[in-house]
Amino acid sequence: MGDEVVLLDILPSCFGMRLRIALAERGVEYEYKEDNMVDKSPLLLQMNPVHKMVPVLIHNGKPICESLIILQYIDDVWNDKSLLPSDPYLKSQARFWANFIDKKVYDSGKRVLMTKGEVQEAAKKEMIECLKTLEGELGERPYFGGENLGFLDIVLVPYYPWFYSYESCGNFNIQAQCPKLMAWVQRCLEKESVSKSLHDPHKVYDYVLQLRKRFGVD
Amino acid sequence: MGDEVVLLDILPSCFGMRLRIALAERGVEYEYKEDNMVDKSPLLLQMNPVHKMVPVLIHNGKPICESLIILQYIDDVWNDKSLLPSDPYLKSQARFWANFIDKKVYDSGKRVLMTKGEVQEAAKKEMIECLKTLEGELGERPYFGGENLGFLDIVLVPYYPWFYSYESCGNFNIQAQCPKLMAWVQRCLEKESVSKSLHDPHKVYDYVLQLRKRFGVD
Repeated sequence: MGDEVVLLDILPSCFGMRLRIALAERGVEYEYKEDNMVDKSPLLLQMNPVHKMVPVLIHNGKPICESLIILQYIDDVWNDKSLLPSDPYLKSQARFWANFIDKKVYDSGKRVLMTKGEVQEAAKKEMIECLKTLEGELGERPYFGGENLGFLDIVLVPYYPWFYSYESCGNFNIQAQCPKLMAWVQRCLEKESVSKSLHDPHKVYDYVLQLRKRFGVD
Repeated sequence: MGDEVVLLDILPSCFGMRLRIALAERGVEYEYKEDNMVDKSPLLLQMNPVHKMVPVLIHNGKPICESLIILQYIDDVWNDKSLLPSDPYLKSQARFWANFIDKKVYDSGKRVLMTKGEVQEAAKKEMIECLKTLEGELGERPYFGGENLGFLDIVLVPYYPWFYSYESCGNFNIQAQCPKLMAWVQRCLEKESVSKSLHDPHKVYDYVLQLRKRFGVD
């Protein structure tokens, strides 16, 4: 039986990019449907009536919402190799850092992009501190997953296309602050599943500039 | 080899009560260490240096943080019966509703307790809507876990000792709004693992009144 897999997403979402990488890693074919956050599609409202947010993975007609939950679903269903470590303690740590990324990196990043002055300055410091913490967590391993790309690599690397926007809006340089983390990004980009799934940083920046204009930041 | 299990917690935390229920369900013996959010212990700062928050489960010296992650860890390690459904789709749905509870019920509840006037009124409506949504999700099943207490039951039922505080501060009645959800609470309370792990609603209310005083809500 063929699986029917649909991904509802919007183009620059770092949450959606995760799923594109994971599906590519597993060789799962899917239909990509671009949604629109200003004028949400009836399909999105039907598939995620609670939060009305992308990404949503629709597998044989059934919706799964929230990127970290979808990643674990992909890991459970197409389980020829595991994204999460099998050891319970290492698994709990991968989940811990995934939540850290979605709370701390996402929140500080949003403030770097959408505020000015002192608030932005504080957010910039917070973001660098978060990235340095993650760099420390990576240590000398090639990937967060160890020798291979794993769950946490797939959670974090979709922030990379946003780095150019953070740097441009916040006037700082991530390479200078976190050279080991940037070397990890380069290793990830050598994987076709990653390089083909990440969006062009300049297109993300165009999107950010539109958002800043809409919310009167400039 | 005997497992050394320590739970760092503070008494009225609904996040900590989850772990007490799960550990009781599995028959895991543990040492309970009461912490203090105003004057955090060196052990807490050492075990959760990133967030500095309870609850923390320390298993043979290694810390696991965040209650939903700890619940899944307990499910992985002491796996004589599973808390999460084994079916990948049902598992994803349990995780989805767990996140819903920790975002929506927690946030609206906090505003019911710690605000006044229009903000509190809006929070009250939001909370009732959330509880009705959960009641709809429960449907005619005895438990969220089906015939037995499961992951989602353990995630939600520790909010029950807080209901009295929500009702007292917000001047509303959850029984009148959500009779089926309250019947589910009563079924949960018939389990010793639940009844012995939940705190006295009046003690929670005393704690809430102290908080309101400290933050000048009254």
